[in-house]
Amino acid sequence: MVEYSGDIFDCPRPTAAIHAAGTLTMLAPCAPSKIIALWNNFHALAAKIGKPAPEHPLYLIKPSTCVLGTGQQIERPFDYRGKIAFEGELGIVIARRCHNVSAAEANDYVFGYTCVNDVTAIGVLNENADFTQWCRAKGYDTFGSLGPAIVTDLDWRAASVVTRLDGTERQRYALSDMIFAPQELVSLISRDMSLLPGDVIACGTSLGVGSMPDGSSVEVTIDGIGSLANTLA
Amino acid sequence: MVEYSGDIFDCPRPTAAIHAAGTLTMLAPCAPSKIIALWNNFHALAAKIGKPAPEHPLYLIKPSTCVLGTGQQIERPFDYRGKIAFEGELGIVIARRCHNVSAAEANDYVFGYTCVNDVTAIGVLNENADFTQWCRAKGYDTFGSLGPAIVTDLDWRAASVVTRLDGTERQRYALSDMIFAPQELVSLISRDMSLLPGDVIACGTSLGVGSMPDGSSVEVTIDGIGSLANTLA
Repeated sequence: MVEYSGDIFDCPRPTAAIHAAGTLTMLAPCAPSKIIALWNNFHALAAKIGKPAPEHPLYLIKPSTCVLGTGQQIERPFDYRGKIAFEGELGIVIARRCHNVSAAEANDYVFGYTCVNDVTAIGVLNENADFTQWCRAKGYDTFGSLGPAIVTDLDWRAASVVTRLDGTERQRYALSDMIFAPQELVSLISRDMSLLPGDVIACGTSLGVGSMPDGSSVEVTIDGIGSLANTLA
Repeated sequence: MVEYSGDIFDCPRPTAAIHAAGTLTMLAPCAPSKIIALWNNFHALAAKIGKPAPEHPLYLIKPSTCVLGTGQQIERPFDYRGKIAFEGELGIVIARRCHNVSAAEANDYVFGYTCVNDVTAIGVLNENADFTQWCRAKGYDTFGSLGPAIVTDLDWRAASVVTRLDGTERQRYALSDMIFAPQELVSLISRDMSLLPGDVIACGTSLGVGSMPDGSSVEVTIDGIGSLANTLA
């Protein structure tokens, strides 16, 4: 692996150093100021839960402090004994500040794609009858796993997300089933709020979400990107 | 006004320079990585909307990109013609990284207090019947006004929030009516996610929220802090 110096989003330059992959510890491949996490963005899941496809992307914000890299441990929240769910997803990584861009322009603002495990404390989500706690249930430290790499030339239309729990396949869905495609997401969300370099849009998940017991491992794989693996401590 | 150099949260030092207040343009007094915005945190408003006091703080996340300072213009979102609401609030500014702290320790992590106008695109909030769009409705660029200053020794128990629309008082409520006090908020939210220097907890609003017509001005005043004034473009 060739070592680069500088900002990944601002013309990093290769150095003379080359490292063997096994000698490196992988961190999250970017440090988003926010993760925009989509809800109800796959036709198959919308059909299963009996909800119509939305007319605008539906999302919550996961904070910068939830980010985790491959191989790092997901931590059970303080004083929470309930279920913790995995959600394998495609992540769009933003290349540069982006506001009010069209879908046709969106690719100029996409740096690449990564795998996401959008971890959720299921018991927190509907704990209060008057307010669905999306940001809290999905915002805990270590609940936003990203990686193992950002791939700049992914053909997402041909790719699938595969999620394995302790080696057993639990999710396998085609990204072509997305309600809002990546370029539409970047365009529509950039009309709501500015996106910054390294920000991640987690495209939402599809069928097969489940809970991960303490000590279990979840691996999210997208061919062409690689596998993002984490254990729940 | 004395000029300081360095990081406001890391031992800034006074310089020899002194400026007359009228010669300066005020920016937002900090650059939060996130704003945690509370819902249903005042007894009077909970009673009015007929909701019980929550057992844990209920909140959403407003992104860093929504921050605005006093005197700057709130911008109407692209392609949105609906109502835009003001919400005058107390903001808690975090001093240093904070995770799993007790209420007794919380003051060590509070830098001070500021005024907040938690601006909301009311028509967006319930646009989709299946998902309340808190982050989108409150996350638009310029929808998180903070300032004019951060006060380190506010006696919040004795203070009130007063909000004026075009000079007419629309909100006046005592901060002592809060369901979760600032030290409890810092403690409980720090158990959910790490808080970073400059992060703001917007403590929620009380009675008198209303919509601001295009061209109107909203001023949020807390005695001891000052007045935060913005116009909707």
